[in-house]
Amino acid sequence: MREIYPGIHELILGTPEADTPSTQFFRRQPRPLRGIEPRNVPPPFQEEALRFHAGTRGFRVELPLSPDEALYGFGLQLKSLQQTGKKRTLRVNSDPVSDTGDSHAPAPLYFSTRGYGVLFDTARYATFHTGGNALRGNRRHTGQAGTIALTEQELYAASGETHPVIVDIPAARGIRLLLISGPTLRNAVQRYNLFSGGGCLPPEWGLGVWYRACGSCNQEEVRQLAAELRNAGMPCDVLGLEPGWQSHAYSCSLSWSRERFPEHQKLVDDLTADGYKINLWEHVFLHPTSPLAPAMEPYSGDFEVWQGLVPDLTIREAAETYTEYHRRTFTSNRIASFKIDECDNSDFIQSPWSFPECSRFPSGKDGELYHSLLGVAAQYAVEAAHRAEGKRSYGSVRSSHLFAAPCPFVLYSDLYDHRDFLRGVTTAGFSGMLWCPELRHASSVLDYLRRLEAMVLSPQMLLNIWSMPHPPWQQLDRDRNRTGELYDTGKQQFLAAATRRQFELRMRFLPYLYAAFARYHLEGIPPFRAVVMDYPECEELRNADQMWMAGEDLLVIPLTAEEETRKVHLPPGTWFDFHTGAARSGRITVSPAPDELTILVRDGSIIPFADVRQYCRKNCRHRVELRIYGNHPRPAWLFADDGESLCDDPEQFIDTVTADGKLSPLLRRRYECTGIARMTCDA
Amino acid sequence: MREIYPGIHELILGTPEADTPSTQFFRRQPRPLRGIEPRNVPPPFQEEALRFHAGTRGFRVELPLSPDEALYGFGLQLKSLQQTGKKRTLRVNSDPVSDTGDSHAPAPLYFSTRGYGVLFDTARYATFHTGGNALRGNRRHTGQAGTIALTEQELYAASGETHPVIVDIPAARGIRLLLISGPTLRNAVQRYNLFSGGGCLPPEWGLGVWYRACGSCNQEEVRQLAAELRNAGMPCDVLGLEPGWQSHAYSCSLSWSRERFPEHQKLVDDLTADGYKINLWEHVFLHPTSPLAPAMEPYSGDFEVWQGLVPDLTIREAAETYTEYHRRTFTSNRIASFKIDECDNSDFIQSPWSFPECSRFPSGKDGELYHSLLGVAAQYAVEAAHRAEGKRSYGSVRSSHLFAAPCPFVLYSDLYDHRDFLRGVTTAGFSGMLWCPELRHASSVLDYLRRLEAMVLSPQMLLNIWSMPHPPWQQLDRDRNRTGELYDTGKQQFLAAATRRQFELRMRFLPYLYAAFARYHLEGIPPFRAVVMDYPECEELRNADQMWMAGEDLLVIPLTAEEETRKVHLPPGTWFDFHTGAARSGRITVSPAPDELTILVRDGSIIPFADVRQYCRKNCRHRVELRIYGNHPRPAWLFADDGESLCDDPEQFIDTVTADGKLSPLLRRRYECTGIARMTCDA
Repeated sequence: MREIYPGIHELILGTPEADTPSTQFFRRQPRPLRGIEPRNVPPPFQEEALRFHAGTRGFRVELPLSPDEALYGFGLQLKSLQQTGKKRTLRVNSDPVSDTGDSHAPAPLYFSTRGYGVLFDTARYATFHTGGNALRGNRRHTGQAGTIALTEQELYAASGETHPVIVDIPAARGIRLLLISGPTLRNAVQRYNLFSGGGCLPPEWGLGVWYRACGSCNQEEVRQLAAELRNAGMPCDVLGLEPGWQSHAYSCSLSWSRERFPEHQKLVDDLTADGYKINLWEHVFLHPTSPLAPAMEPYSGDFEVWQGLVPDLTIREAAETYTEYHRRTFTSNRIASFKIDECDNSDFIQSPWSFPECSRFPSGKDGELYHSLLGVAAQYAVEAAHRAEGKRSYGSVRSSHLFAAPCPFVLYSDLYDHRDFLRGVTTAGFSGMLWCPELRHASSVLDYLRRLEAMVLSPQMLLNIWSMPHPPWQQLDRDRNRTGELYDTGKQQFLAAATRRQFELRMRFLPYLYAAFARYHLEGIPPFRAVVMDYPECEELRNADQMWMAGEDLLVIPLTAEEETRKVHLPPGTWFDFHTGAARSGRITVSPAPDELTILVRDGSIIPFADVRQYCRKNCRHRVELRIYGNHPRPAWLFADDGESLCDDPEQFIDTVTADGKLSPLLRRRYECTGIARMTCDA
Repeated sequence: MREIYPGIHELILGTPEADTPSTQFFRRQPRPLRGIEPRNVPPPFQEEALRFHAGTRGFRVELPLSPDEALYGFGLQLKSLQQTGKKRTLRVNSDPVSDTGDSHAPAPLYFSTRGYGVLFDTARYATFHTGGNALRGNRRHTGQAGTIALTEQELYAASGETHPVIVDIPAARGIRLLLISGPTLRNAVQRYNLFSGGGCLPPEWGLGVWYRACGSCNQEEVRQLAAELRNAGMPCDVLGLEPGWQSHAYSCSLSWSRERFPEHQKLVDDLTADGYKINLWEHVFLHPTSPLAPAMEPYSGDFEVWQGLVPDLTIREAAETYTEYHRRTFTSNRIASFKIDECDNSDFIQSPWSFPECSRFPSGKDGELYHSLLGVAAQYAVEAAHRAEGKRSYGSVRSSHLFAAPCPFVLYSDLYDHRDFLRGVTTAGFSGMLWCPELRHASSVLDYLRRLEAMVLSPQMLLNIWSMPHPPWQQLDRDRNRTGELYDTGKQQFLAAATRRQFELRMRFLPYLYAAFARYHLEGIPPFRAVVMDYPECEELRNADQMWMAGEDLLVIPLTAEEETRKVHLPPGTWFDFHTGAARSGRITVSPAPDELTILVRDGSIIPFADVRQYCRKNCRHRVELRIYGNHPRPAWLFADDGESLCDDPEQFIDTVTADGKLSPLLRRRYECTGIARMTCDA
């Protein structure tokens, strides 16, 4: 066992595969450890505590698990937060339908409430048996027959006993494990993120409002939409264009459509001048008509997807060619962001569009390995095109895996259950991932409001209106929106105002969120995380998958349209209503108005609350009120770089502000304190 | 390439695994070819048409597929009938939730409308890409951008092009293929079944009515139920006892409960005297208190399930011990049948109850191989206990695989969607399997009637009332049934009469169904099969998954409670309404009364239609009316053994009857002709 980073020990069992997530050329260097005490911690268990076996079908590892610990992680998991006592098969997948481990973004990595994590350095679809299966001779037997079951639930109820974690890694003859110490659960997650290269640091504009235009839009319609948003006073930083910007999509030409966007550069320039950043949809599958196709031909796999080549972006030369094409064609021409679609896989869909696991790629990978790694490889390749222009970016991606914390991309999917969408925010944070509970349409006004609100303190505030020509506040129903059957003026105005209010609230939290991301980058603290990550000892919070911490101090409790009220157990201590300052604690019932997101503030917090702006510019200056909750406020972080350039030394832009509201010269470059509000009051 | 059975060629690619479905000790000898012309047929393709590759993660095979052919098979598939253009991962599973190939009873075997089949002799969870994925350079490219999609369905629609079949076999370095010739699709299926040992031949009583008693029943309550069924004039041949008959279940003691069944042998003897056969629920997981456990300990895997041993029934000595225990304890004491539960696996359930794929078994198998083989191994081991007593049996089982056609067991599952249940009848027939669309409860009277009707001409007419203390005709709702909130007398009588009517209809078809099974045994013709198996050239029938052929001549069109009418395309030729004799053809609309199953008869058929009996006895004599449809009736099969004994030479008991109604001496032992009805009339 060897310590390869403070508190991270490497353990090699058997003969691991050579091609793993950690051996990819694009992997970032770890960031220095910061914000964790003590610096060095012994490993959570000794080598002797593990057992392993290499067989015909792969490699098996057994790891200790105590009855009192709860496990989290395995990447984005939309169907459950706590992962103890289950079988998880980490298959890369679009649209997983049940709680099996299948995921857009699985990661062979778990963390325990006992304050440690275990990373399995493999791109195989490993299966984890997390304490639900008993090895023979390992438990006490009972002679009692038990009760007669009359429901399937009774029959198949878990026993409540706990057994080892058993990991089943196909094809491998060994595994490289990283044992990640805490001492706390949160510290272990921080160490993982810092070891991965630190959390991503988005440009400030990435934290503003996003709007994806209808798929059928041509350049004139995009202009009209942009103007309409500004006229309606809707804050918006990013406009996304769907596949139709390309001359061929499914697969991609990665070239502008002359038909729909004859003057695309003028469009991009004009919109950029109007404060918009342009995001372009793409996937990696290259249509033969793409100018990039000939260069990628020798680097492509032996299957096609939608008639397109599947480039192997784990080969350095291939990725560099891909990056350079993006730089030359897009990022040097003011394209600020990309949405990388369909880098997952297609098990649950009628037509299997993606390449099979038995595909063969020039790097020597098979399709299984490449399915695990494609999402991350594509993120690094695309981000490098922004980087080459000296810019940071923030984009969307449909798959990810290990070591992706530094990638400035937010996960999304075609699923839409709102509870699953909320849960995604809580699970992604355990694996260096971000998830967007995006809004596409709504089944009712209440559903619309709840989905909007839930994004205010989430990784991305995104209206993905690709399937509707009119903004959702003019008609929520997809079919009617398409046929132009819009609401009457009154209802449109009501919905527009409600939308604007949530957009504005997002913008007011921008300095707070930006600082939270700086802390993600520098200290590895997930800006959005399950409450259990901060309070692992609190049994009542172990399955709290419908609320989360946003930044250091805000507890967000979003409701869905199915709930009028919700009973929640608050973490220990006093919590204050963000808006009223009312103190709450223990087990409470929340019953927010339809257009109200429940936000509670940790005792002793200073929350910078900014004036509304329509969009961000480089070095733009925020007027912030400091809201103080509780009697002993701690200094709060603010981050004061220019908002969008690459910065090699981000620590120089961090400073804190105290309750007196006096800003340092560094912070004054970007922030102005407009007042101090002491928010505390009794409930 | 080597012909190993008439029309079946063996092809070995690479170095196959040693432990496969075909190498298990319990495999039956093939039956002689019968009823297929020509006897010998060349293989569907030559060795040169296949490509293969051994890689780190397993073995890949490419097989030809033409644009015009449709594929079927892969075992029981509840979510789809036609298997072309898909990705099928043949993972053994309880409760598969979507159309992925996951199944209680998968089988690496497909058949083509071009009149051939391909069997992959592997117990691995192979993945089949059935023409939906394109190899690079294999298709024409188009430069057209296509239309802009505004729905997910449009985005992910299949292209309509066809590509090779690609098979991905984990862990293996080679594969043994069996290429099964036709010349017709149905002939190919017949050859597979005969090669497997012939279809199963149930005892006559197995085709009667089954009723599974409530799980909480003690011996007195079982007695009362048995008396109640007889008093109500409900035909019933088999009474099933749920886990509570055992002293410990989940896992199993395989011993009677002294508490609930203190005089179990008297109960069995009395019920047997009253014409009932007793079926006992079990699974293979052996509780430490089981008398069988010590003997099985050395033959068990390294994981427990529900605190029980997992015996390796692929080891001859282990299986023989298991069989002998069943013979000594049960079959020699008049237990006539078993239900073998939970021999599948638990991916889709919250608590993973079954053994992991990385388990290790004394035969050298891992858990993946044993999951594929356990269902078949258990069927053979249990059936051997009946066989040892000279008896045939018919039971229930939750998992199966290749070469199981001779096993007298019917598949079932805990799922309950009625359309899926109907579809199962059509898909199972392609892989030597039988599926029961059992009734457990109903959401409405119509749902009840439709579910009842659909079983009349299915492999098993089974009321599985394990979760309700009262018969369903007294209360359909589970919760109310449990609390004793029964319907008023009028509604009970109405439902009881409707139930009796369907039970009686089943009994009237008994000689017809028994002959169909004899033909399954002797000629390999599935007694229940998708219409496309008989009419592969008829494009309109390729996705007909809600109707089936029962025996040679009946076309069954069951409706669900969701339909009032259904438009169906009939196979070529004239079809007659079974009850009225009205002629139908082409595309028709059926709109049966709520208590009416639509049954159509092939032109030229003689259908023996028996008097109702309450249950079958050995050598019981059936009074049959011969119903004649069309002007040129073909002779019809009847099977005239004693109805339950093992018969080494079943051909001696087959004879045919013609339209004159004169029975041979052989047939007269078991059948009496009560009349001839010429049913033909105009629509």
